[in-house]
Amino acid sequence: MTHDSSVDSYRLRPIGSVRSPLKRREDCPHQGYDGAPEAWIEIGPAFAAGLDGITPGCEMILLTWFHEARRDVLQVHPRGRTDNPPRGVFATRSPDRPNPIGLHRVEVLEIESPGRIRVRPLEALDGTPVIDIKSILAKSGDG
Amino acid sequence: MTHDSSVDSYRLRPIGSVRSPLKRREDCPHQGYDGAPEAWIEIGPAFAAGLDGITPGCEMILLTWFHEARRDVLQVHPRGRTDNPPRGVFATRSPDRPNPIGLHRVEVLEIESPGRIRVRPLEALDGTPVIDIKSILAKSGDG
Repeated sequence: MTHDSSVDSYRLRPIGSVRSPLKRREDCPHQGYDGAPEAWIEIGPAFAAGLDGITPGCEMILLTWFHEARRDVLQVHPRGRTDNPPRGVFATRSPDRPNPIGLHRVEVLEIESPGRIRVRPLEALDGTPVIDIKSILAKSGDG
Repeated sequence: MTHDSSVDSYRLRPIGSVRSPLKRREDCPHQGYDGAPEAWIEIGPAFAAGLDGITPGCEMILLTWFHEARRDVLQVHPRGRTDNPPRGVFATRSPDRPNPIGLHRVEVLEIESPGRIRVRPLEALDGTPVIDIKSILAKSGDG
């Protein structure tokens, strides 16, 4: 394999962080629909202009960085159950993976102030860095 | 805003790259459904074990790093049309954004060898780094 790019890594800067009642990894549901709570997303003032157009009621995709995940894991038992045969992490949604990016489809419930957004459901831990937010593409159903 | 994490940036390592007939940014459709072509995904040997469980016919989410994007842009005219009023990048799918991560829902067409996967549709440029692959969650429809 060759890379066209001359660098072999990129620097990711958090744009904000998650405020959630989920304080420990073992408290987190596996997915948002597994009973995850509401959470607040706090976006840094330097990035608030990028939120223009996000309104209560809309759905969006939140990308987070699972800062407590293991990056050296390539195979897991799906949903952490050892009776499930091991699978490649890229065929799962395990937080443990080489670049531990979390992908969450959430509904916007409230915008309290520029940069403070209440969403649900969110299975990410309190303090999890937020790295990107995207609109939903209705046409592709990509959520 | 406070961050719980003690670092203010993270290091992202590409796991592979895109091989595509799209060679210039101006040739790329805005979205996969805008007539994007098939492409090959080449995953590095060090990460191939993570692909176990991915088979032809399945759909998956590909995350890429738009290495040619601008990271200092917070507002854009959606779909590059200046008659569309400017919007925050986080309410769009613009590649220009603080952390230029691409999110693509693709179908797996063929697995040629461990680490070489043909997919469609993919609107990313030839040489675009691949940073993660995830399964689709049927239940949440998050694509």
